Amino acid sequence: MRRRHLAAGLLALATPALAQPDPMPGWRDGAAKQAILTFVTAITTQGGADFVPPAQRIAVFDNDGTLWVEQPAYTQIFFVLDRLRAMAPRNPGWAQDPLFRAALAGDTSRVAAGGMAGLLRLVAAAQAGTTPEEFQTMAGAWLATARDRRWGRPYTALVYQPMLEVLALLRANGFTNFIVSGGGVEFIRAFSAAAYAIPPHRVIGSTHGLRPIEQDGRVTLLREGRVDFIDDGPGKPVGIARQIGQRPIAAFGNSDGDWHMLRYTTEGPGRRLGVIIRHDDAEREYAYDRQSHIGRLSRALDDAPRRGWNVVSMRDDWARIFPT
Amino acid sequence: MRRRHLAAGLLALATPALAQPDPMPGWRDGAAKQAILTFVTAITTQGGADFVPPAQRIAVFDNDGTLWVEQPAYTQIFFVLDRLRAMAPRNPGWAQDPLFRAALAGDTSRVAAGGMAGLLRLVAAAQAGTTPEEFQTMAGAWLATARDRRWGRPYTALVYQPMLEVLALLRANGFTNFIVSGGGVEFIRAFSAAAYAIPPHRVIGSTHGLRPIEQDGRVTLLREGRVDFIDDGPGKPVGIARQIGQRPIAAFGNSDGDWHMLRYTTEGPGRRLGVIIRHDDAEREYAYDRQSHIGRLSRALDDAPRRGWNVVSMRDDWARIFPT
Repeated sequence: MRRRHLAAGLLALATPALAQPDPMPGWRDGAAKQAILTFVTAITTQGGADFVPPAQRIAVFDNDGTLWVEQPAYTQIFFVLDRLRAMAPRNPGWAQDPLFRAALAGDTSRVAAGGMAGLLRLVAAAQAGTTPEEFQTMAGAWLATARDRRWGRPYTALVYQPMLEVLALLRANGFTNFIVSGGGVEFIRAFSAAAYAIPPHRVIGSTHGLRPIEQDGRVTLLREGRVDFIDDGPGKPVGIARQIGQRPIAAFGNSDGDWHMLRYTTEGPGRRLGVIIRHDDAEREYAYDRQSHIGRLSRALDDAPRRGWNVVSMRDDWARIFPT
Repeated sequence: MRRRHLAAGLLALATPALAQPDPMPGWRDGAAKQAILTFVTAITTQGGADFVPPAQRIAVFDNDGTLWVEQPAYTQIFFVLDRLRAMAPRNPGWAQDPLFRAALAGDTSRVAAGGMAGLLRLVAAAQAGTTPEEFQTMAGAWLATARDRRWGRPYTALVYQPMLEVLALLRANGFTNFIVSGGGVEFIRAFSAAAYAIPPHRVIGSTHGLRPIEQDGRVTLLREGRVDFIDDGPGKPVGIARQIGQRPIAAFGNSDGDWHMLRYTTEGPGRRLGVIIRHDDAEREYAYDRQSHIGRLSRALDDAPRRGWNVVSMRDDWARIFPT
């Protein structure tokens, strides 16, 4: 009995990714789960052909649709809409702007049709003139009270349990995990540590101008209306190179906005992992891909086979969707 | 005997900063060393009035003149000059430009007089058109062979032993250390992990444009000539807010270029630490401050007493300068 425990322990040491108990209980057995476990074992096996030292174990994750729900609209849109509604009486000019009219009417699909650029224009209007500290308080307070309409739950409860398991598996195997999102960086930073164990400095996202000013005799920063970086599509490799300074070895995404990031990651030398989360579970979450305004997945899906990217079916590969 | 060990161990646990043996042997006993140790003890003491949870233990360090030697010119200048000399035959137009003429003549003081903006113009010329991977290879190869003229040693040997001790002390006490430098971010990333145990993603610096392109059927990034962010002076709080997303609680600098960062750090709520390294040791290193082209220290020095910043005399406070 004792000897069997020892053997199991040695096996666990030799293949950390496969250590008992199953590090990915939220996943059904299948090709997708196996690809992730095999990759982690390969790059952590000392002396193996695919060994990668811990300093280079960089993994990047899209946020909306990859780590948490992005339908019927990006969560940040709901935050912005609530803010804009509160600010509208002081901004009568907004009624002349179709994008703002859609936003104030709560027409999230017309807002989503404006794409990331439209969203960021709304974000800028809703948040310009605040300091980072003020914004963090605002976003934190909103996240604590706002509820998703379908499930009636806090948005931070609508993170994907199988992906939390992947984050934990990689962390336990010496990876440094980053979020690389088209969303506003500071909104994600307001919850990334609590939701994903990813600290603010490991979140990369879209940004708007920050102007250093003196306020009450102190140096602080003022958020400007101007969006100065869109961390989406071809912007994702740029954001990664600027903030991480290393090419990742594993990337997880769910839409064509992640195509460049998936390529940038998996085209590097040595063994790499590219994973696409496919939303095909209308019952437990949502089913969408090629025609969706939000999280459109078409080119990346077509490319997956020849680029060796693993397509995860939420319906077939995930035993559960949310933590509780 | 056993009991005394146990007691010492408990004492060490209670006051980690003062744990035996002395974590700062490169420092002479005095106010500066004591201020650092006292700060670390205060913010790590559970239940104490000044306790700060690990997630907020962010420390920022200037690089040139704070972590390594910056005289007779920033090390990056020597790297750039060597590159420019090799490229000059293919760029005859450079002979018409006073800054480039000074650079090619090796006149580092005239180059330094051009300030950070001038330096970055040279950096851009020397590095534009390379990918981050190519640049890292170039910078690494140069650092492996280049020698400082005064000591005849690799530049990476000219880091300050007392500051390595501070980095290690903070790391051991749950801090996350960042470099926040006016220098080009990718140059520092080429050696920060080996020299300071600070990985590339925790280096913030000046940047130039990165353009995503296809090269040999792969997504890569091309460094443009355009400098798009200068991480110096008022830029330092901007760089911190963008990349770290949190206000630091400890800052170390040596020049007026660190004044905004020191203020941004020490004006936050709760207990804070601001430290200025003063170069006043002509014999063992260099003596310069108010009149220097490089690392001018004037306003920050005048401000130190009323802002509670600790001024470190290299001559008096440091028992040794370099690791060996």
